[in-house]
Amino acid sequence: MGTPDLDEFDLIARLFRPLTAGRPEALGLADDVALIDGPSGEQWAMTADAIVAGVHFFPDDPAGLIARKLLRVNLSDLAAKGAEPRFALLTCCFPADVGSDWLAEFAAGLQSDCALFGLAVIGGDTVATPGPLCLGLTAIGSVPRGKALLRSTARTGDDIWVSGSIGDAAFGLQVALGKAGSLADDHADWLLDRYRLPQPRLRLGKLLRDVAHAAMDVSDGLLGDLGHLVAASGLAAAVELARIPLSPAGQAALAVGLGHGWRTAVSGGDDYEILFTAPPGAAAAISAISAQLKLKISRIGCITEGMGVVLLDGEGREMSVEHAGYRHFAGSA
Amino acid sequence: MGTPDLDEFDLIARLFRPLTAGRPEALGLADDVALIDGPSGEQWAMTADAIVAGVHFFPDDPAGLIARKLLRVNLSDLAAKGAEPRFALLTCCFPADVGSDWLAEFAAGLQSDCALFGLAVIGGDTVATPGPLCLGLTAIGSVPRGKALLRSTARTGDDIWVSGSIGDAAFGLQVALGKAGSLADDHADWLLDRYRLPQPRLRLGKLLRDVAHAAMDVSDGLLGDLGHLVAASGLAAAVELARIPLSPAGQAALAVGLGHGWRTAVSGGDDYEILFTAPPGAAAAISAISAQLKLKISRIGCITEGMGVVLLDGEGREMSVEHAGYRHFAGSA
Repeated sequence: MGTPDLDEFDLIARLFRPLTAGRPEALGLADDVALIDGPSGEQWAMTADAIVAGVHFFPDDPAGLIARKLLRVNLSDLAAKGAEPRFALLTCCFPADVGSDWLAEFAAGLQSDCALFGLAVIGGDTVATPGPLCLGLTAIGSVPRGKALLRSTARTGDDIWVSGSIGDAAFGLQVALGKAGSLADDHADWLLDRYRLPQPRLRLGKLLRDVAHAAMDVSDGLLGDLGHLVAASGLAAAVELARIPLSPAGQAALAVGLGHGWRTAVSGGDDYEILFTAPPGAAAAISAISAQLKLKISRIGCITEGMGVVLLDGEGREMSVEHAGYRHFAGSA
Repeated sequence: MGTPDLDEFDLIARLFRPLTAGRPEALGLADDVALIDGPSGEQWAMTADAIVAGVHFFPDDPAGLIARKLLRVNLSDLAAKGAEPRFALLTCCFPADVGSDWLAEFAAGLQSDCALFGLAVIGGDTVATPGPLCLGLTAIGSVPRGKALLRSTARTGDDIWVSGSIGDAAFGLQVALGKAGSLADDHADWLLDRYRLPQPRLRLGKLLRDVAHAAMDVSDGLLGDLGHLVAASGLAAAVELARIPLSPAGQAALAVGLGHGWRTAVSGGDDYEILFTAPPGAAAAISAISAQLKLKISRIGCITEGMGVVLLDGEGREMSVEHAGYRHFAGSA
């Protein structure tokens, strides 16, 4: 909904980077997680995200759905690193109008997803706020030492892959905003669901540990996030528009002109798919993983020398993309 | 400032406890931290706190001071567990009026305290909010396995001790609210500083690892917090009012009638001292630690069978205390 000022977010990144004191655990504040030492042979992948009513969700969204979205946006970060969720710490700033029914629904939403994804809430804080509902979550996952998939380790010549379909949530947001236009109801409902309830690709992330060179989750728009990945790797990317996977509902949304069409699909947020790079020789393994998970995985381009991301049309011509997606400090949405 | 509804916080505690799934790392959401496995021989103590403008600090407080308070309230939790701070993850919900000067001051405040306390920011998230400035921090400290000081391990017959002086911050809040009355300026300034900038007792906590039976930090008021400690230990406490340590400025505040007098001192928040219990035989060791740190440590009562906290006057008669202090979910302020 709200798009923060990009300059400000650049400033924050510059101001906060020295706070890492050069510790390798921080990954330069340029990845989805931090990695600290765990018990023998393991690392803890840690990510923290905040969501605010009226910015990241609608104030009248069901409480259980808000809870599950809070959890899942963090789990998506863990998924993209190949980490398995274990623990969460939760900070809640509750406005005065939060009542006992709402709280019970919120806790039930957390409970069902904690059970589904195998993690436990182990701490947190609840405070009152005179402002909108504001929630923070620190998620902790385990990953074998040295096996976490980073943003910074793409290599020249890698293929670029993405799971599932892109743009559904961005079109779903248009639906949520009452801008579904002539889109059929079943498509509209499906896109809305993709917007409201992310599906963290945890099984995929784990299977990619020994296959991918680099990975991140797509939370702030495919092309913007790919830009972060290649910047972290010191490389460039070329993506073919025609290869970007759209769902049937996404194609229908495109056909009736929702939002800014394909620009919305490639730069809108909240996909929560995994974007990764892998050597060309890994294609067969990726195909097998796709079949095993019954999850589409699409090759959308390749990693090259240079910097930045270019989008290519059917004739290989460079296209201009105006919407760059929005960014969070540390890119850690 | 604002005092959340106690019933609601009880409800939240009841609703959230099942989310621990019985994991021992959560300590039943009844301690200052969670404890997860670290590298060989170590545990990670983790605590998360949120602070909101207009609730936990004044919106026009200097940005550097807000940053340092955010960090220090979390470090106080680590201190009370005997943990040494190592890392932090930071979530910032910034309103639109936060500008570059403010951000630079905020980062500088974090930087100076990170250097002072030896920790690094390793991750986080920054988002926009239409509401007040709202900040969350997850602090991570290391402690030798099994050495963390818990709330639940007090024993019958233990002495109850507290570091420093109690009530300064609660009186300092009265000063901040313009209610200093006839209090001398130097006392008022000193109390205000105690309110605005907590001094986490990290060196003390570390030295208490092999001395104390149970410990927690005093953040929500001495008697209320002691109530949490004895509840977690399944025991009771008797405290002598005359033994509760007051600073010279605190005594002056009491003399001129700030707030609700001694009730403000024993039930106001933001002391950030360490409250701990130890066997009577530890008195000499505690005295030596006090001398080593040049920090007053006062014996204020003892642990008994039963439940609850009683406050005793000079003749050993039970006194009534109306203000119970405010509480946070998981008591983890």
